[in-house]
Amino acid sequence: MKSIYLFSEGSKDMKGLLGGKGANLAEMTKLGVPVPPGFTITTEVCDYYNKNGRYPNTLEGELNTALSTLEKQMGMKLGDPENPLLVSVRSGAAISMPGMMDTILNLGLNDTTVEAVIRRTSNPRFAWDSYRRFIQMFGDVVMGVPHSKFEAILHEAKETKGVSYDIELDADDLRELTASFKEIIEREAGREFPAEPREQLRMAIDAVFGSWNNERAILYRKLNNITGLKGTAVNVQAMVFGNMGNDSGTGVCFTRNPSTGENAFYGEYLMNAQGEDVVAGIRTPQPISSLEKQLPGAYKQLLDIRERLEKHYRDMQDMEFTIQKGKLYMLQTRTGKRTAAAAVRIAVEMVDEGLITKDEALLRIDPLQLDQLLHPQLDPIAKAEAKVAAAGLPASPGAAVGEAVFDAQKAHEMVERDKAKVVLVRTETSPEDLIGMNAAEGILTARGGMTSHAAVVARGMGKCCIAGCQDITIKEDEGYMVLGGQRVEEGDVISLDGTEGKVYIGAIPTVEPGISGYFGKLMGWADEARKLGVRTNADTPHDAKVARKFGAEGIGLCRTEHMFFEGDRINIMREMILAPDRPSRKRALDKLLPMQQEDFKGLFDAMEGLPVTIRLLDPPLHEFLPHEEADIKEVASQLGVSVSALREKMESLREVNPMLGHRGVRLAITYPEIAEMQAEAIIRAALDVKKEGKEIVPEIMIPLVGDVKELAYVKKVVCRVADELIGEAGVKMRYMVGTMIEVPRAALTAGEIASEAEFFSFGTNDLTQMTLGFSRDDAGKFLPEYLSKRILDKDPFQALDQEGVGQLVKMAVEKGRKARPGIHLGICGEHGGEPSSIEFCHKAGLDYVSCSPYRVPIARLAAAQAALRAKASQ
Amino acid sequence: MKSIYLFSEGSKDMKGLLGGKGANLAEMTKLGVPVPPGFTITTEVCDYYNKNGRYPNTLEGELNTALSTLEKQMGMKLGDPENPLLVSVRSGAAISMPGMMDTILNLGLNDTTVEAVIRRTSNPRFAWDSYRRFIQMFGDVVMGVPHSKFEAILHEAKETKGVSYDIELDADDLRELTASFKEIIEREAGREFPAEPREQLRMAIDAVFGSWNNERAILYRKLNNITGLKGTAVNVQAMVFGNMGNDSGTGVCFTRNPSTGENAFYGEYLMNAQGEDVVAGIRTPQPISSLEKQLPGAYKQLLDIRERLEKHYRDMQDMEFTIQKGKLYMLQTRTGKRTAAAAVRIAVEMVDEGLITKDEALLRIDPLQLDQLLHPQLDPIAKAEAKVAAAGLPASPGAAVGEAVFDAQKAHEMVERDKAKVVLVRTETSPEDLIGMNAAEGILTARGGMTSHAAVVARGMGKCCIAGCQDITIKEDEGYMVLGGQRVEEGDVISLDGTEGKVYIGAIPTVEPGISGYFGKLMGWADEARKLGVRTNADTPHDAKVARKFGAEGIGLCRTEHMFFEGDRINIMREMILAPDRPSRKRALDKLLPMQQEDFKGLFDAMEGLPVTIRLLDPPLHEFLPHEEADIKEVASQLGVSVSALREKMESLREVNPMLGHRGVRLAITYPEIAEMQAEAIIRAALDVKKEGKEIVPEIMIPLVGDVKELAYVKKVVCRVADELIGEAGVKMRYMVGTMIEVPRAALTAGEIASEAEFFSFGTNDLTQMTLGFSRDDAGKFLPEYLSKRILDKDPFQALDQEGVGQLVKMAVEKGRKARPGIHLGICGEHGGEPSSIEFCHKAGLDYVSCSPYRVPIARLAAAQAALRAKASQ
Repeated sequence: MKSIYLFSEGSKDMKGLLGGKGANLAEMTKLGVPVPPGFTITTEVCDYYNKNGRYPNTLEGELNTALSTLEKQMGMKLGDPENPLLVSVRSGAAISMPGMMDTILNLGLNDTTVEAVIRRTSNPRFAWDSYRRFIQMFGDVVMGVPHSKFEAILHEAKETKGVSYDIELDADDLRELTASFKEIIEREAGREFPAEPREQLRMAIDAVFGSWNNERAILYRKLNNITGLKGTAVNVQAMVFGNMGNDSGTGVCFTRNPSTGENAFYGEYLMNAQGEDVVAGIRTPQPISSLEKQLPGAYKQLLDIRERLEKHYRDMQDMEFTIQKGKLYMLQTRTGKRTAAAAVRIAVEMVDEGLITKDEALLRIDPLQLDQLLHPQLDPIAKAEAKVAAAGLPASPGAAVGEAVFDAQKAHEMVERDKAKVVLVRTETSPEDLIGMNAAEGILTARGGMTSHAAVVARGMGKCCIAGCQDITIKEDEGYMVLGGQRVEEGDVISLDGTEGKVYIGAIPTVEPGISGYFGKLMGWADEARKLGVRTNADTPHDAKVARKFGAEGIGLCRTEHMFFEGDRINIMREMILAPDRPSRKRALDKLLPMQQEDFKGLFDAMEGLPVTIRLLDPPLHEFLPHEEADIKEVASQLGVSVSALREKMESLREVNPMLGHRGVRLAITYPEIAEMQAEAIIRAALDVKKEGKEIVPEIMIPLVGDVKELAYVKKVVCRVADELIGEAGVKMRYMVGTMIEVPRAALTAGEIASEAEFFSFGTNDLTQMTLGFSRDDAGKFLPEYLSKRILDKDPFQALDQEGVGQLVKMAVEKGRKARPGIHLGICGEHGGEPSSIEFCHKAGLDYVSCSPYRVPIARLAAAQAALRAKASQ
Repeated sequence: MKSIYLFSEGSKDMKGLLGGKGANLAEMTKLGVPVPPGFTITTEVCDYYNKNGRYPNTLEGELNTALSTLEKQMGMKLGDPENPLLVSVRSGAAISMPGMMDTILNLGLNDTTVEAVIRRTSNPRFAWDSYRRFIQMFGDVVMGVPHSKFEAILHEAKETKGVSYDIELDADDLRELTASFKEIIEREAGREFPAEPREQLRMAIDAVFGSWNNERAILYRKLNNITGLKGTAVNVQAMVFGNMGNDSGTGVCFTRNPSTGENAFYGEYLMNAQGEDVVAGIRTPQPISSLEKQLPGAYKQLLDIRERLEKHYRDMQDMEFTIQKGKLYMLQTRTGKRTAAAAVRIAVEMVDEGLITKDEALLRIDPLQLDQLLHPQLDPIAKAEAKVAAAGLPASPGAAVGEAVFDAQKAHEMVERDKAKVVLVRTETSPEDLIGMNAAEGILTARGGMTSHAAVVARGMGKCCIAGCQDITIKEDEGYMVLGGQRVEEGDVISLDGTEGKVYIGAIPTVEPGISGYFGKLMGWADEARKLGVRTNADTPHDAKVARKFGAEGIGLCRTEHMFFEGDRINIMREMILAPDRPSRKRALDKLLPMQQEDFKGLFDAMEGLPVTIRLLDPPLHEFLPHEEADIKEVASQLGVSVSALREKMESLREVNPMLGHRGVRLAITYPEIAEMQAEAIIRAALDVKKEGKEIVPEIMIPLVGDVKELAYVKKVVCRVADELIGEAGVKMRYMVGTMIEVPRAALTAGEIASEAEFFSFGTNDLTQMTLGFSRDDAGKFLPEYLSKRILDKDPFQALDQEGVGQLVKMAVEKGRKARPGIHLGICGEHGGEPSSIEFCHKAGLDYVSCSPYRVPIARLAAAQAALRAKASQ
């Protein structure tokens, strides 16, 4: 096992072993891009350490060799009292986890070497500043002394001197600070700051490997579903300094705009600073274009590198650079994170530029990320009339409306406990705020730039974010902020427009997004590529219209029960449930009939002739009765029955396991009159549509079937009603009767069921519940533990369990097609909108997926990707 | 389609077409046994009528032909004013349904033919008695006039005349009765009694066919799970008369004793009576042996026929006969119903007699019937000390202890609603009482003989029955009886000894039965024949011992949770559940450990080295908390927690669908310390047993596994504990870790699971719930409708759903064996004791079935039958 690779030995294809940062440093070295030399300790070493509690025996020897090579390349030596080599020690896993793991800069400094640096640079301020930063970082990261302890002393020093900025502290001030910092370390960590550079290096490597398993890194991997990695690599690299004076600086840049996708060089930098200053968002940096004036040579070189790297990687790059006394060094390049809008625009434009193919463009976009484009924006009209309270950097687009909260934990709790919608407001964010950012609708910070922690993380999450909003003053401890001169308390509602970077006090209405421009173009390509149809689950004409706008090709699931909760229908429904006999039940159903008919007519109209699958009543009847003590009396009096009669009925309908109870087709068998009424409403509505000259083939779906005899029984009822009505109308009209496959037995006996069913729709929500024996309502008690103990890789209610549930789906497809070759097959569970499940559906040979309206574009893209991947693997 | 067969045309193998009665009348005719001639209208006609609402066109012609053949054979003519033929019209399906369908005797009588009968018999009383019986039966059965209306007039006539018995009415009285009966018919039915014999015949045939679908026939078929029949046949047969004077009579006899099985001629008869008098139980008949004195010739002939028929049919026969003026006629023979004890004894003795083979003996006994032999008898010692309150006929053996109830509907309700145990006490029973007989522990009647309705039905149900108990006077309407001079109110407890025919006031303790004698011999043969092992589901040493006595070869399922409900353990369990953290949870578990250890030691001891499978904790924790408002306060104070804390915990544990919730292996994953404690208790107990020099291989079973990773996780916990303890003890001891297959996903991924599981036990209760999506606790809301609408043939919780659930079982067997060839496979759901399911298990290749202790002998026999049938079909 080779533990260490020099940058000159690796390449971008070695990410698994060298981590993303290490592999790309090696690649840039190979390309001749200026990179300070260094080496990478592999992820296998991290893995070895985690498994064995010690390093491989060969590591020390390899480290010595690599270090002396580096010393030779630089002509400097670690700890040398005359010409000391300083290095950075950085983490870097195969998948980028920004800010989650640790970094140490300026390693190699001690009381002796700092003097050598002073001698060589003639810049005592720089030397002492580097030294105090090193102690501070090393104390925090390696020795576990809280960052705030150092900051407090720094703050004190500035106060004493009466200045505001670090930069105003001189060499002497900083020298004194190093002494104070070392004292803090000794007091807090119980041991001295280590002066020996080799010991510093060993401890730093330990700490970086250790940071793989710190809490926030684990949380980040969990949130981002990052699994299967060996660990982090450690990169040891010769230091270059952006804080050597006003001809030095450091910055972050993107080959294209990561927020909009525009093909324009984009980034920001700080003069006389180290990288951490940019990322931490403490000083607000300058836009990259200003560099052209300040250091035109370096800028030109950077522009050239931008072009070379993007062509080489064939994707938008996110780069870090440092300019040391006018000379440019690249410290990192990686494929840049981007908003969904940017991802789409970049992919489409790169196709137009001939850089990538359409297939590559389609495969490059994470379908789930499109979700960002499908959520509301602030209503332009309402926005125009509202007063802008403050403006900041448009760090992540979209809209957020919610209660302002100034603490991440609190934000999390308010969402969890009160189901509140919140906007997290912080002076600046740090990885500790992740939990609150995750819970919030959007994020607003007072400091930091477009590449600050808040901005990067929010873009990754697809959440709206405004960063560096200097018009606000936040009193986090006191729980309020002053925004545009107005005091905003915790809980007051504010609205963010992340696309424009504008903040409003109060709630501004939002509007639905559409598919056009680059997005529309990409979706067009997706439609050409995919084989699966994409339908939607919609119960109302409104949902149906939204889904149509997003490209739905029909309704795969209309849940009729939702229609019974609206307005006074619920009371008629209750009247039906409480009816003592069939005739009075029928009287109540007769009242519901015209309402249902109108509902269906509305849906048929909205879908303009596209197929519409309507499921007959599914939930157990007790769901329609009141549950709260207080409501029972009211409902009883509304219905004109005694409280005791109502209670008695409720008691008789009570179920131990309602999921497995008296619902679905079982209702239609015990109360065929309900199925009759619904069939009548569907057919009458279809006949109405037909009268208007439009064609419609209603698909009537019987839920929860487990045996063909159940389906046959209800089908007979439905067909009798339908055929009679169609006969009376004297027209020809086709309709279909099919079933959900959601009970395991239905999949097992799908051959028999197909003899009666003209279509199958896989109800994978219930099929998952029954196949796994997980009640979705109760699985929260153990699922988190299952995920954290890695007993399950994914929540099976989100991503289809292909091994178990998928086996039943495949079995049913095969048996169903064998028994009825033309049978139409789809899926209408939540999984119909989840990319990995959609890929499964493609492979299983389904005809379509059906998902919620906002998932339709995601499904279209995921279906295209499935088809492309299948083609590629042939 | 041939609709009618003369008796001389059929044979006993044509039961499906001719019904049991018709086929056997034909067979006897062929054998030369004296049978009055006649013919059978086939069951296909019944089926045709039910499907088409009319008879086949050819029926009328065939009926005319058959009737004229019969007239020729008898030398008489239907309706002939000089020499009229009288016929009986009787139902008879392929499977006997005693008393469920209708019969009409003496058909052909009217005001003219009755005079011819008087002239030919010179017995006006006989003629008028026959006529009034015919009108009464015809009125009741064909024209729908309630039986009671006729009885009331008959009663009045007797009162007027001051006599007690029908026999005391003379010809004139009876003539007057016929007139009154005809008037009632006209008044009640709205039309005249039909005088024309051909019309009488057509109407009677209609009524008998119609009786196939009367309510009690449907109920009977449902209770006895009789399906797949075409309908009833109709037998038209020349009348012979047992009521022609004192040289005439009628009776019912069995070739062996149907109650005990003793090889002795058995039966009873009434002189000067028609068949209905014996069956209805109105007069108490004489034992058959008395016939030898009264009519020695007929008796000798009957003995001869007894022998011929039993040899011919190779089984015990139940025969009906009539003696007309000294001449014997056989009216029916069929394989006789018998108690389980009789069935066993007859089968074993017939093998000993060389009449049948051992295999035949085994196949001849319905395994479920053995249940009768496995239930308690009255304790002989307690019985000896108790006072016999009354004695009757020992109509069906066994014991019954319960509240006396005098109304069938009420008996049913008390059992359903109050879970009461009741004894149904009636003057006599009729088919309307079926619902109450089904609900009761036992039946006591004041009138009727060993072949009365009560006796026959009770024996069929395997229920204890005492019939013809003349020492009691029952006031059904007033709700009490006088029993041995003592008044017994409804709800007072009485005890029946059906084996001896004795009634006791109060509850007499019962004792467990054993397997010995004929039963033991049969079980020995079963054990030789079967391939499946038979284990038991037992949680206590007591249950384990009972099962051992019944032949269990191990414990297939010990449910450890039952142990946590006993005594003060429930409080420790609750302490564990309410524990705020792992250490306090462990403290509570430490208290449970020695108790569990003792439990397991007791089980191991009781099973004497046979295998014992112990399932780790399965139910959700909320099952251990109080449910009633009243208990919460008490429990809180016992546990020293606040009511609100207890409530909060209860709320946090509440589940929407507990069946699919936080239970089984999921508990062991979230609280591994529970599994640790149980593993420790099991292994410590096994080590204790080993110290005593006995061998034991404990089998530790993890419930509710759906993914191999769940099993692997808990197996690791269990093995760590077990290996440590065994290591400490310094001995060698084997133990096994396996899993339930009860989640559909477990069956689907059984190959993977078998890589960790050393055995599978199919938990078909839960597997049925999840595969069908039926909550067992809630299915009562729709299952009855499913069964009555024939959507399901059987309750899937009683008989394994072979098509659905069975498919998963077969899949798991195949995948499991492929992955681990030696894997041990069993079933521990309720189905393990149900014969059709046991046959399935045999075919699926399981190693054993496990069932409740009282089902063990049933399983042994069913397993033997499965093996024999499989051998036969090879």
